[in-house]
Amino acid sequence: MLVFGIDPGLVKTGWGMVETCVNGELKYVNSGLIKVNPKEQLEKRIRYIHESILHLITLYGPGEIAMEEVFVNMNAKTSEKLIMARSAIFTAVASRGYTVHGYKPNKVKKSITGNGFANKETVKRMVNAILRQDISAETLDVLDALAVAICHCNHRMA
Amino acid sequence: MLVFGIDPGLVKTGWGMVETCVNGELKYVNSGLIKVNPKEQLEKRIRYIHESILHLITLYGPGEIAMEEVFVNMNAKTSEKLIMARSAIFTAVASRGYTVHGYKPNKVKKSITGNGFANKETVKRMVNAILRQDISAETLDVLDALAVAICHCNHRMA
Repeated sequence: MLVFGIDPGLVKTGWGMVETCVNGELKYVNSGLIKVNPKEQLEKRIRYIHESILHLITLYGPGEIAMEEVFVNMNAKTSEKLIMARSAIFTAVASRGYTVHGYKPNKVKKSITGNGFANKETVKRMVNAILRQDISAETLDVLDALAVAICHCNHRMA
Repeated sequence: MLVFGIDPGLVKTGWGMVETCVNGELKYVNSGLIKVNPKEQLEKRIRYIHESILHLITLYGPGEIAMEEVFVNMNAKTSEKLIMARSAIFTAVASRGYTVHGYKPNKVKKSITGNGFANKETVKRMVNAILRQDISAETLDVLDALAVAICHCNHRMA
C-alpha cells in the first residue's frame, strides 16, 4: 500500500510517498517540496498548498495519508498561520474522503530512530537507511515527510 | 454588489448574503446555518463545512467575501479546532480566487451599533433594522454572519 507522508509548513511543505511491500520492507516512491513565497498574499499561499496536495492525491492515489502534527506554542500569531497551512492540507485530504493519521514529532522520531529526542542528523541517516536512498540534509522537510510516512507504516504493521 | 458574510464555527457556521444598492441601502438576500454533528469525525465535519461554502459561492457568485476573525484564546486545543474550521472556509474562499476580508468581533459590533462592546440583543436589533428583517435570536450565528457582511459593506462605502 502507498502511504503519503506530509510535513506541513507555511513556507515549505515536505511530502513523500512510501510503499509497504509484502515482505515488510518499505520502498521509496517519490518525494518533494511544496514551496511558497512568504511575501505572497496568504490566500494565494493557502490556495497553492491546498491545490498541490489535491494534485498529489490525484497523481499517486495513495492508500493512506499521514501528517506531522503541529506543535501549538505560545506565539499565537505564528501558530495560527501554521495551523492554517496544516488545515488547508487537512481540508484537501478530508475532501477526498481520507482519514488524516496525525503523529507528534517525538512519536515520529521514536518510531524511526528509537529515540523521541533524536537530532535531525540521526533522523536523516535512518530515513535514508530504511529507504535505501541518499536524500541530502538540505531538504529536511522532505526527510521529515518521509519519516512520518515510515512512522505510519511501522504503526500499521505493529 | 453581493457580499457574502461568514461567522465560522466548528459546530455552527452562520452565513448571510447582503446586496449593496446604488442608493447606499443594503438589501437582505438570504442567510442560513451550516450545522455539523460535533460527535462526527473531524475530517467529515471539515469536509462538510468546506463543501458547503464552495456550494454557496457557486450558487450566489458573491462579489466579495467577509469573515469574522477568530479570537485565539489560551485554551490552545479549542482554538486549534476553531482555527481549523475557519481555515477550511478560508481555503474554500481562497481556492475560488477571492480575498478574505477579516473583521474582529469588536469591529463588527462597532460598525453595526456604534459600540464595540454592544450585546447580542443590540446587534440583533440593528441587523434586523438595517436589513428590514425579523430574524430571531435563536439563530445568533446567522445574525453575526449578516453583521459581518454589513460591516464589510460599510467599510467599502466609507
